Amino acid sequence: MTTIADTPGLRSSDRRPLPSGSALAAFFARGREQLVDEHDEALWTSLHRLTEGGKKFRPALLLHLHDALGGRDHRAAAAVADAVELLHTAFVVHDDVIDGDLVRRGRPNVSGTFAARARAEGCGPERARRYGETAGILAGDLALAGAVREIALCGAGPEVVARLLDLLEDVLHRSAAGELADVRVSLTEGASLADALDIAEWKTAAYSFELPMQAAAILAGAPEDVAAALGAVGRCLGVGFQLQDDLDGVFCTAEESGKDPLCDLREGKATALVVLARSTRRWEELARYVGDSDLTEDGARRARELLVACGARRAVEMLVRDLRDAAVAATGPLPPQVREAVLETIDLLLPSGARAARGAA
Amino acid sequence: MTTIADTPGLRSSDRRPLPSGSALAAFFARGREQLVDEHDEALWTSLHRLTEGGKKFRPALLLHLHDALGGRDHRAAAAVADAVELLHTAFVVHDDVIDGDLVRRGRPNVSGTFAARARAEGCGPERARRYGETAGILAGDLALAGAVREIALCGAGPEVVARLLDLLEDVLHRSAAGELADVRVSLTEGASLADALDIAEWKTAAYSFELPMQAAAILAGAPEDVAAALGAVGRCLGVGFQLQDDLDGVFCTAEESGKDPLCDLREGKATALVVLARSTRRWEELARYVGDSDLTEDGARRARELLVACGARRAVEMLVRDLRDAAVAATGPLPPQVREAVLETIDLLLPSGARAARGAA
Repeated sequence: MTTIADTPGLRSSDRRPLPSGSALAAFFARGREQLVDEHDEALWTSLHRLTEGGKKFRPALLLHLHDALGGRDHRAAAAVADAVELLHTAFVVHDDVIDGDLVRRGRPNVSGTFAARARAEGCGPERARRYGETAGILAGDLALAGAVREIALCGAGPEVVARLLDLLEDVLHRSAAGELADVRVSLTEGASLADALDIAEWKTAAYSFELPMQAAAILAGAPEDVAAALGAVGRCLGVGFQLQDDLDGVFCTAEESGKDPLCDLREGKATALVVLARSTRRWEELARYVGDSDLTEDGARRARELLVACGARRAVEMLVRDLRDAAVAATGPLPPQVREAVLETIDLLLPSGARAARGAA
Repeated sequence: MTTIADTPGLRSSDRRPLPSGSALAAFFARGREQLVDEHDEALWTSLHRLTEGGKKFRPALLLHLHDALGGRDHRAAAAVADAVELLHTAFVVHDDVIDGDLVRRGRPNVSGTFAARARAEGCGPERARRYGETAGILAGDLALAGAVREIALCGAGPEVVARLLDLLEDVLHRSAAGELADVRVSLTEGASLADALDIAEWKTAAYSFELPMQAAAILAGAPEDVAAALGAVGRCLGVGFQLQDDLDGVFCTAEESGKDPLCDLREGKATALVVLARSTRRWEELARYVGDSDLTEDGARRARELLVACGARRAVEMLVRDLRDAAVAATGPLPPQVREAVLETIDLLLPSGARAARGAA
């Protein structure tokens, strides 16, 4: 799972608290008012906990662009920003169910919390797992429905709301297709680079970049071509971000990336990095390490050497640079101050090369 | 899972086709326009197939009451009716994932379809199961988000839409709590009759009865007390319906109930019938049969004898009668022609006793 939430804030110079959060707070307050029993309470508490902390990258991106676009309906923008965060939470919770993960950011997630509750009642591991997954599916459902609701009730005019809901529907469709493809390619070793790029676009770029960026344009009443350009930027930036995240997950230390540097290798997901390595002669040796759930630090070091030696790391770095260039190029049709804001975002998320491109612009 | 969809239509005398369905058709048409690959297509096809057939009880109930309440915005009512059907589909799909079921109404469901696709590609059973569950979670997500969207865009005024979305949120909350409780009580044998009744109310009555009945009132602009009365009727009727369904699942033939008469006994769910039997001396023998996934026809016959002998059947029949009486009593505050329509519904869903009560009214 992408760790966009752990990336630096979008406006390092801006010390104002994020003006979103009140729709999210109201969602959980209503949830708490309607509790029917202690298990229901635990469900809402574990869901709520997932929305706390993190850098709230997606709502920040939406609000940043909404301001840059001269948007005036700050209340509606804040509500939609919260909806995007709630959608992210829904995806995180359902992803964890799909991946069988019980922990997120070092703490039990919804499934982990409920599996532990079942174990404490004396249930065996299989039944506890099933109860945990049930809670995860249900909590994700509540967050997903909440996200659609917050957009519907954001307070913007009916035409804006309808366009936002159309955008959301399109994004949900691709997110589902991306998640399905992600699980499918893990079933066999048949994933191509095109598969890996499609998955990055559908599963990450669509809801984490296109959605907040295009929603900002719709909320600000920007012309169609501005919204379309922001969508194109979001697609390139999102895929580039995901590929960089794949690199960081393997080559960065825990301090640098904020996650266990063995985790991605152990999981062995069919990232662009892994897919490219598979087509090389080094794969024969690499295959021992990638996807080995008992991978040691020594094994990981060797895997990194091989990923460098086979050229996969370099190839992905070049892809990231190309995608960053494409994102910068896609800012062309944007009005100057919007373009400036978008380039700033590209700089923050995909540093160096973006800076160079911007210097040249 | 409740088989309300297989109950008789609400208006046997009415041969007009149900005036809903176009929002549902448009939802799937948009989905088809956005397909990204063949797997995505299979996902939408398997989801669509689930909404075909069946008696569409919930939308019929909504439209029937909307008419009786003098509602005029038939397009909005039809869209919300479709949303309720889509919500039902979402719950069915996620329920099947939670229960590990791969078949519904004799055909592979979403999870079954995708597990079979993975098997055909040479995957082992565990990976195929995981892929099937992934597809089920994602398809349910699409249907759930679609349901909220259809209500948001039903075309009614903003205040009506906001009230409908509040109702939906409340219903979703209780449905999730009910599903969680249903799985939890199956982990141990500690369920009480109160648990079984709560689960029937939260998991079945809320979305299958309260939601369509109260939505009809909101759409028709009925006064608060009418909406509240319909909610109360829906709760009683829904719980009564679920309890009757529990009885039918054990004591009716396949022809009468439309489902395998061994299925409920094999599954061994903590229904009111089972919970009551557990507190009797007969449970020692009954426990051999209830929840035995290899239960034979002879075993089922003995289980039925014991469920009668221990008094559980009689007790549940009395509960159903009490709930039916309570539903009839709750119609008190309704205007005459609305009351007539509601009593007709009670008659159809919980026959005899309701008829008697109505005769006396």
